[in-house]
Amino acid sequence: MDVALKSPEDGQHPAGPGRALDELHQELARRWAGADALDSICRYAVLPAGKLFRPILLLNAAACVGGRAEEVLPAAVGTECGHVASLVHDDIIDRDEMRRGRFSVQHAFGADDAIIAGDALIFDLFGCLAECRATGIADERIVSALAAVSKAGLDMCRGQHLESRLQGRLDCTVETYLEMVSLKTAAFFRAACACGGILGGGEHEQIRALCAYGDHLGVAFQIHDDLLAYTSATTATGKPADSDVRNRRLTLPVILGYRRGGSAAAELKRIMTGAVEPEQAFGAMARLLGETGAIAAAGALANEQAVLAYEALAALPDSPHRTRLAEFAWRAVERTW
Amino acid sequence: MDVALKSPEDGQHPAGPGRALDELHQELARRWAGADALDSICRYAVLPAGKLFRPILLLNAAACVGGRAEEVLPAAVGTECGHVASLVHDDIIDRDEMRRGRFSVQHAFGADDAIIAGDALIFDLFGCLAECRATGIADERIVSALAAVSKAGLDMCRGQHLESRLQGRLDCTVETYLEMVSLKTAAFFRAACACGGILGGGEHEQIRALCAYGDHLGVAFQIHDDLLAYTSATTATGKPADSDVRNRRLTLPVILGYRRGGSAAAELKRIMTGAVEPEQAFGAMARLLGETGAIAAAGALANEQAVLAYEALAALPDSPHRTRLAEFAWRAVERTW
Repeated sequence: MDVALKSPEDGQHPAGPGRALDELHQELARRWAGADALDSICRYAVLPAGKLFRPILLLNAAACVGGRAEEVLPAAVGTECGHVASLVHDDIIDRDEMRRGRFSVQHAFGADDAIIAGDALIFDLFGCLAECRATGIADERIVSALAAVSKAGLDMCRGQHLESRLQGRLDCTVETYLEMVSLKTAAFFRAACACGGILGGGEHEQIRALCAYGDHLGVAFQIHDDLLAYTSATTATGKPADSDVRNRRLTLPVILGYRRGGSAAAELKRIMTGAVEPEQAFGAMARLLGETGAIAAAGALANEQAVLAYEALAALPDSPHRTRLAEFAWRAVERTW
Repeated sequence: MDVALKSPEDGQHPAGPGRALDELHQELARRWAGADALDSICRYAVLPAGKLFRPILLLNAAACVGGRAEEVLPAAVGTECGHVASLVHDDIIDRDEMRRGRFSVQHAFGADDAIIAGDALIFDLFGCLAECRATGIADERIVSALAAVSKAGLDMCRGQHLESRLQGRLDCTVETYLEMVSLKTAAFFRAACACGGILGGGEHEQIRALCAYGDHLGVAFQIHDDLLAYTSATTATGKPADSDVRNRRLTLPVILGYRRGGSAAAELKRIMTGAVEPEQAFGAMARLLGETGAIAAAGALANEQAVLAYEALAALPDSPHRTRLAEFAWRAVERTW
């Protein structure tokens, strides 16, 4: 299969056609429009929406196998609720005060309310799945999607927990890092693609291909996210660029830089153990990762995953939606947002 | 309907027949038997098991409408996972160090891991539902149960949030308190009864009756829980008796005592605003609530709810399982554990 990834058309939003985006926004707003105080916290968490990458993946995956957007829309919205739940809880764990360019939920409302709001968003993810009955999806497909989503949620938790155990473990192997990212980040990409395939009525092999695509895409996306702090003026998450360094979060370039050994490894260790002044830590880290070629090497690994994602699509029939999924693979490692 | 509640047979465990209990324990242990570090935290959270009240409700509700225990067992286990998730997250919010007579998850493993473990348990609740397909439950019933459980989860979050907003609000009405408890505590009782009825193949009216039963039972249960700190040597939750007072958690006897007005109300306010020394607060509170008759009045309201729960069962056919549900109504307000 030709792996030359297509370049996006200029000015086209990576999320795809505007109408689906509008409907996603409206549906997210509608779900949390209540007067209850908890609604206002959940509304703050989900809106203004982020990239809506997972719901758009779900919509395109469904379309790839002949599913209709209006039927799978609740599930698409659900994946965003589940994703935002993980961000809300992650920000408590990481003590991150900023998210998407403004105060995180835990900083704006306090950690206690953020715990409850995250839980509410997880429950609503499953409420969204149940609502697919009303849009005409067969119960048999909903139960299969339920199995995929609950499994993905558990994987995500395992990945979050593994990440916290790896904190500061510079001797982490690339394999362990990839396992962690496949659990933590790619799980919901997989779930979105699997749900789209299942709810859209895909055959077994098509759903398997969509899962493989989602897995590799998620890993590519996370590696690129790790790199954005060093390569982009703003970060994709709206968090300060030095968040990872400050939290001593293990990222792929750091692992690769440490494996170079020598004085660079010693200096990385000093930074990751807090021996370098906080104001200088991020700059020193960026310089080291550039000089050792770790940033370039991590970028190459992200590209490799994007190519694998692209190749997985070969099992799906050619369609504009498959082309869009292929574009996402390219964008996952090229975006600056 | 005759509301004379049956008294339990001596020596019989309130949870019902031993075999179902054994299977619940085994299944809980099996779900979290993995070597993963997150498994060990979840295992610590769910085992040794508490009263298993919600799963046993589900099993009996299913049996009431002709359902088979082995078919609904995964869902029963799921309600326990969901319930434990709420305890794990509640203990973070309340800074409770003890639960079920030993360290709470947040105290034993830290709040960050407790957040992740609670999330994992919520996802597993839904994974359990999906597993009912393998035991022979029709997909149509699973999707209906999914809708009921996700709604209950959201209700529970709304109740937790309402409770935190009511903290220290002594002028809270009994109606608002009952609304909060119906959301926070009774939601999972309702969900367990509804799931049993739905998965067991009950008719619409039977499921409605089971929901009403679960709702009143849950409210009675929570009021009685509020009272146990003052009436029992040990508390049902394994938390210190002074936990509610220390956390200034609004409970029904406190609301009723405050409504008596006069010097008692002024003294309650002093205790609930932290103006009384912590070592004396609980004793002073217990004395005031006894003297004002607030404990007796709250007990009467709990009994009222238990009677309503009992009466709701009239819509179900007579069976040993209905008798057991009736016994639960009685035990909910008589237990000392």
